[in-house]
This record gives sequence, C-alpha cells and structure tokens, in this order.
Amino acid sequence: MWKPDRGSDKPLYAQIADDLARRISSGEFPPGTRLPSERSLAELLGVNRSTVVLAFGELRAAGIVESRTGSGTRVSRGGWGAAPKQTPNWSRYAEDGGFLPNLPLMRRIREALSRHPSLIDFASGELSADLAPAAEIAALLREQDDIAYLGYDNPQGHMPLREALASYLARYRGIRTTASSVLITSGSQQSLFLIAQCLLAPGDAVAVEDPSYCRSLPMFQSAGLRVFRLPVDEHGTRPGDIRALRKKHRVKMVFLNPNYQNPTGTVLGAERRKELLEAASGLGLPIVEDDPFSLTAFGERPPDPLKAMDADGSVLYIGSFSKIAASGLRIGWMVAPNAIVERLADARQQMDFGLSVIPQRIVARFLESPYFRPHLERLRTELQFKRDLLIDALRKELPDQVEFAVPRGGLHLWCRLRHAVQDGKLLDEAIRRGTVFVPGSVYGSAPGYVRFTYARPRAEDIGPGVAAFAEALRAMEHGPGGP
Amino acid sequence: MWKPDRGSDKPLYAQIADDLARRISSGEFPPGTRLPSERSLAELLGVNRSTVVLAFGELRAAGIVESRTGSGTRVSRGGWGAAPKQTPNWSRYAEDGGFLPNLPLMRRIREALSRHPSLIDFASGELSADLAPAAEIAALLREQDDIAYLGYDNPQGHMPLREALASYLARYRGIRTTASSVLITSGSQQSLFLIAQCLLAPGDAVAVEDPSYCRSLPMFQSAGLRVFRLPVDEHGTRPGDIRALRKKHRVKMVFLNPNYQNPTGTVLGAERRKELLEAASGLGLPIVEDDPFSLTAFGERPPDPLKAMDADGSVLYIGSFSKIAASGLRIGWMVAPNAIVERLADARQQMDFGLSVIPQRIVARFLESPYFRPHLERLRTELQFKRDLLIDALRKELPDQVEFAVPRGGLHLWCRLRHAVQDGKLLDEAIRRGTVFVPGSVYGSAPGYVRFTYARPRAEDIGPGVAAFAEALRAMEHGPGGP
Repeated sequence: MWKPDRGSDKPLYAQIADDLARRISSGEFPPGTRLPSERSLAELLGVNRSTVVLAFGELRAAGIVESRTGSGTRVSRGGWGAAPKQTPNWSRYAEDGGFLPNLPLMRRIREALSRHPSLIDFASGELSADLAPAAEIAALLREQDDIAYLGYDNPQGHMPLREALASYLARYRGIRTTASSVLITSGSQQSLFLIAQCLLAPGDAVAVEDPSYCRSLPMFQSAGLRVFRLPVDEHGTRPGDIRALRKKHRVKMVFLNPNYQNPTGTVLGAERRKELLEAASGLGLPIVEDDPFSLTAFGERPPDPLKAMDADGSVLYIGSFSKIAASGLRIGWMVAPNAIVERLADARQQMDFGLSVIPQRIVARFLESPYFRPHLERLRTELQFKRDLLIDALRKELPDQVEFAVPRGGLHLWCRLRHAVQDGKLLDEAIRRGTVFVPGSVYGSAPGYVRFTYARPRAEDIGPGVAAFAEALRAMEHGPGGP
Repeated sequence: MWKPDRGSDKPLYAQIADDLARRISSGEFPPGTRLPSERSLAELLGVNRSTVVLAFGELRAAGIVESRTGSGTRVSRGGWGAAPKQTPNWSRYAEDGGFLPNLPLMRRIREALSRHPSLIDFASGELSADLAPAAEIAALLREQDDIAYLGYDNPQGHMPLREALASYLARYRGIRTTASSVLITSGSQQSLFLIAQCLLAPGDAVAVEDPSYCRSLPMFQSAGLRVFRLPVDEHGTRPGDIRALRKKHRVKMVFLNPNYQNPTGTVLGAERRKELLEAASGLGLPIVEDDPFSLTAFGERPPDPLKAMDADGSVLYIGSFSKIAASGLRIGWMVAPNAIVERLADARQQMDFGLSVIPQRIVARFLESPYFRPHLERLRTELQFKRDLLIDALRKELPDQVEFAVPRGGLHLWCRLRHAVQDGKLLDEAIRRGTVFVPGSVYGSAPGYVRFTYARPRAEDIGPGVAAFAEALRAMEHGPGGP
C-alpha cells in the first residue's frame, strides 16, 4: 500500500492529501462515504495525527471532503456532477447482505496485523514462512515445461492431483480411495463451506466440538444452520453426547477434528472412535472428519483417521496442505461418496468455476517428488522445537497464571488463564505491546482461554511475544494503573 | 479416469469387475447406492454393454452387488459389516441442500463432454487450448525463483497483481482506480457469486439482460433473489426498462454486459450508456458491469466501459482473464468502493480463504511482460478467423434456416433458427452426431435460439461441427424417419 515518501521535497500532509484526492476521484471512496478516521489513517500511514489533520484541511479547502462534528469526514457530493445525483448507498448494501461478516474479534486481529505487520503473530493458524517448502515449490515451478492446457478443468479437480492424493491418502493416512471419490477444494475452508451450503438447508441442526474451529465460522450461521455443542475433554468428544444431540435436536451432521484438535490439541481416544463410528452407523448420521494436522505428529504415529475404519460409509473426510506445506497453495480435498462429490463439484462450478490448474499441478508433483518426505521431517522437528519454546516461555513468564496440556501434534496450544479476564481487552493490551493471539471465546463457550499458534511466529520471536503477552495480562490483572 | 487395458491377458469384464469392487470397497459407492447403468458404464469405458453385463454378473456372484428388475444394480448392504448398520442417505443429503444444482441442460452438456471428449465443442464458453498463452505462462513459471512467502495472502488479493491490474485498467479500459479498490476473484463467476450472496438478501429483486449469461445461473435463485428481465435488442438494454423495473419491483441491482454481450454479441449504444448512468445515478441504483470480452474486439476500438464514465460511483466493474488469456488461471477482479471490497474480501475468507498466490504472481508478471500485447493481437486475429469460419459454415450448411448478427468481438455467435424446434431434443441429436452447443433457452426466454462459441473448437473442426449440427437440425425437422 501507498506510504508518504519522507525523502520527498513535498510535505507529508500534501502527499497524503494528493493520494486521498486521487483515491476519491478513482471511486475508492464515492461521494457521501466516510473517510477513515484521522487516528486510523495516521496509524496506517505511520505519521502523526496532526499531519492527517492538515491533509484533511487541504481537502476540505478544495471542496473535496466535508467534516461535521461527530460524523467524521465525508466525501462531498457537490463536487462530483450536478445535483440531484445519487450514489448507491454502498454501506447499506455492504451491511444488508445475507452472508454474515467475520466475528468482530477476528476482524480486529486481522486489522491489527495489516496495520502493524511487525506484531508477533500467535493468531494466524498457519506455518511461518520459513516452514513452507518455498525452495522446493520454486524448483517444481521451474520444471513446468509442458503446460498444454489452461482451460476449465474437470469440476472435481485436476485428475493427476486426485490420483496423487489417492496414493498419498493410502500411504500416509490408511485411507483406501480412488481419484473419482476425491474433490479438490480451496483448503478445508471451502470443503466446510460447500458442505454447509449444499448438503444442509436452513433450519438444519449440526453438532460441532466445543471448543472448535467450526464455532468460529459465521459461515454456519450464514447457511441458516442451528449449531449445537459437543464438549471436548482430554480424550475428545463423547459419543454419548452425539447420540443425545441426535435424539434431542435431530442433528443432521457432526463436525469433528479427531487428531490434534484445533484449538485444544486433543486426540480422540481409540475406544471413542469405535463407539462414534458405531453410533454414526446405527443412526445413519454423517460425520465430517477434518484431518489437517496428522502429519505434524511429534515423535508418534498419529492415530488412523475415522475414515480408515469407516466400513459403512458414514464419514466425509476433509484435509488440506495448508498446515503441512503452505496455506498459500490453497489446496485441500474431500473424500466422499460419488453422489456427494458430484453434487459439490456442480455447485462449486457456480461459485468459482474451480481452482487454477497451476497450483494443482505443482502440488501433484510435490507429493510425488523426493522433496515431500524430507520436508515433512523438517517440519515436524521445527514445529516441536517451536512448541517447546512456547511452553518454556509460558512457564518462565507466567508460571502460576496459566495451565495447558502439551499438544503432541498440530500448530496450536490451548491455554487456560487461572484468572479469567475480559478477552477483548486482553487482546487490545497485547496488541499495544506488540503481540496478537486468538481469544478463546472465538472457539468455545468456556471463559478464560487463549489460543497460541506456535507455528506462526519466528522461533526467535516466541520468547519476546510471550513476554509481551505476560505484560498485557499483568496490566489487566492489576488495572491500568498497577505495577 | 480408469479404462480397461485391451492389451492385458485378463478379460475386459474381469478387469471391470475388479475396478468396481475396488471402488466399492474404497467408499466411492457406499452400501445401498445404485451403480451407474450398464449402458452408461459401457459408454464411459468404451466397451460393449454385454461386457458390463458380465462384470456385474461377477460382482453379483461375489455378493458385492444386488440387482433387482427396474431398480438397477445396487451395492449390497450385507457384505459390509453386521446389520443393522446404516449408511447415511447420501443421495438425500445431495438433493436436500439449500444450493441449487446447475440447469439440467448444462449438466447434460457437461456429462456429454466428459464422456465423449472428441465431441466438437461449441458449448464451453472459453478459448481453445491453442489460443491460451501456454508457452508464455510456462516461461514465466520458469522465472519464479524468489518465492519468499506462501502463506495466507491479503484477503483482497495479491498486492502486486492488484497494482498491475490498476495500471492495466487505466491503459486498456480507461478506468482510473487504485490497488485498494480492486478485489481479486476466481474469475467473474466468483465476483457474481459474492455479489449475490453478500450484497443482496433473499427476496431482493435484481434485473438481468434477456438473453444473458446471468439467466443461466441458478446461483441467483440459490441466493433467494427475484430475477427480472431486461430485453436486449440490437443496441443492448433500454434504460427506460430499467426505470420501469425499479419502479414496479424495487429492483436493487442491475447486471449488464455492455460490450459484446454474452450470448448476443450486442454492444450497448453510446446514447443508452449515458442514459443508463443517469438513470442509475438518479435512482441510487447500482449497476454490475461485466466486461470480459472488450479486448477481443475485431478491428475496432471497443467502447469505454460504463465504469470509465461513472462519476457518481454507481458501477461495480467486474472482469477476468478467462476470455482473453486462459480460464484455467482463474483470475478475475472487481473494482468497487472501499466498503464493498472490504465486505466481500471478508466473506470470501470464510468461503475459501482466497486464491493461491502462484497464479496471481504469474498473471501480474504476464500483464507487465512483453508477452501480453502480442498475445492479444494474435488472439484477436485468430478469433476473428474462427468467427468467419463459423459464419461461412452456417451460410453453407444452413443457408435458409438460420439468421444472426455478425459479432464484432467476444467468443459467441447467437443464432436464430427460422423453425424453432424442441431444444433438448436438438441437443441430443447433435451430440449423437458428434457436436455440442448451448440451447438458447438456457440464456433467454425467446424460443428457437442457439449459442455457438466459435472460440472453443479447433479451427479445422468448425466446418465439420456445423455440418453435424445441420444434420441434427434436419433430422428434427423431418422427424426421425425423414431424409
């Protein structure tokens, strides 16, 4: 994004005024819309607020904007064509649509990260840049010499990738499947979206773990679903709870993340897995199994997925490369019965016409390349190292204030604060001190939790990040004036 | 997809039985589901129906499938775990979801193309493989040596691509905009989907051209929108119709494709453009302008888009590289006011977490590379050549049976049949003779039209394709037993 040039002869305020005038005339801010506040613009551009005040003054003098006390600065209507012209009420359109926006806390985190890229980021649920196989991907890109076809691809996804995935799933996850049972999606996210939009209808009841990633998705509400909770203990969800919910609310689908669950890190117990599949099978109840973390397991063989034991075809299995390679590839998949794969592929055509063939080709080659296995080994070692750094830092900085179970895989640590605090405020305090995390209320109903993603910050930032968090927590506990 | 190996010692029927058994045990066809019919499987695998009958016999003998007269062949329940197990009723889930499937005619075309890849394809609205800049893209891929970050990208899309697009739009389309007003999408399709889902709510009224691509999108109905028609004549839509619809149905948004409209090829007249913008501005009514074809213009400067004259900020402008470079890149964009771009970027995060950075990087470089302009010139020349081949073939094969306006850009020719026939039947007759097109009823309300996409078939197939179409039409006109 544009920043004023401090080396220029032109004063900063004039540069800012010119940039705003250009953006206004280009339609970014149509007549009548409100400009960002002086404070937020100052933060965004890295200048003093007084500089922005001067810039706004310039624009006001030119008749380009108007300010009114209490309602901020707006783009003038007068200057843009003769009255009585009307600009569509865009904010109204943005607010009135059927699809719900992201949770306010999540938007606050995203905004903070985009304004202050130097924040130590325990919030984004992904790998740090150095853990992605960037050099390997670049090497594979350079080998692409035979691109014969760049048209619309098969609605289910690129066939060579689906074939590579079928082998991958057999080898690494014990799942026997075929290319025609695989749908390629834009990460697990799109699998969840397609299921919510296309296999369920408004008013349907679904069950999700509490806490869970699914709880953080307004997307479920946007699809009109009624969402019920399955409490997670140290061995995951209890099958009895699923039977009870089915009976009470006629739940139509269950969403589970059995291995290294997000956010708790829990692994669903072996007995429960059996019971769960029996329950599902007895009730004809579909289970959506999200399995993004298994290949990060630290020094243990991850349990087989439910799908590998799913003799009765109750499980829709979803996975992705976001957590084990790179989220920017946007490659995920679903393994499902024929009728479902075809239905979802058809719907996806209408939504986005499928994924680009280019990353699909690259990932197919990556899976079959000699790079894949060493990458996984390096990834596991580094993640475990970073997990341990986080744990050491938490024990050092907050020995009596936090408790957690040590995750045996995955990217996240779920941390209970002994003294619960208002978590939006804690987030603000932490941001002010240079770090960001996800408040537990985003994922679950119990108060006083925090999700730290140890995968995302650089190793050397983990200690300082936890120190900043500890300061924020102490500031909350002692009040703003405390020690 | 798997095909039996004719060189193998193992009989074809046994190979097919083995493949089906494998697919059944892998969950592609869960217990209780119906297998494809003998006839369709025979077609799919390129074998005689009797071979499939033998294969099904094998599976029946092994207890893997059961056949009952009149209800086809189903996967046995008995063989897969003890009763009373239940597989979720997947077909029910596939049918009951809130999102509507594609139009039956469109699914029939897609199915025909996937079963018979040798069909001469006038149906798919895209470029033939040889018109895509495949060599150029491959060259740019080989230059990718500095992939530093493969994480989640900016929700609006990759910044260097948005910047390249802002320059591109200024240079080629006369649109002044900035990177922060651009949202990158998975083709125009996703722009339309996001608008329908997020800026409109169930019950809202919208207006679309008749005929138009938008009419073919069940996606509008899935969003619960009421869709009203704006008849298209040789100069496009009439502004008066928009005013009338706004008044009568409180239309909240208008979807237009002013240049080389799909499917008619019409260009919206200069006077009407002005009137339209005045009407929109007077009513505060947003216009969605879809502009995918302008750079294909044959030997004329395409009219400036509405967006270039949009002083009052009434226009959401959408475009894509699908029709001027390659649909498999899946790169499109929207130019919109800040509030809209942010709202849609947020929603898109929940749907698919954005596009892969890899094709975005490639397209950004392509736009700024010396390859781009020569590609466009070659594209225009070849498209015009193919358009002329189609016109010559139609005049030769069906001199008295068809009429059409000669399109001055775009990929399609909209053709009226002097004697209207039942268009699903005509499609079947054409498929049987080796070609496929889109029946006009998919796009519009007037009977007796056909859309031919001259961009898609190879040049040498255009003549034979039209000959096959002409035969199909004659077979309809004279009845099945006719000459």
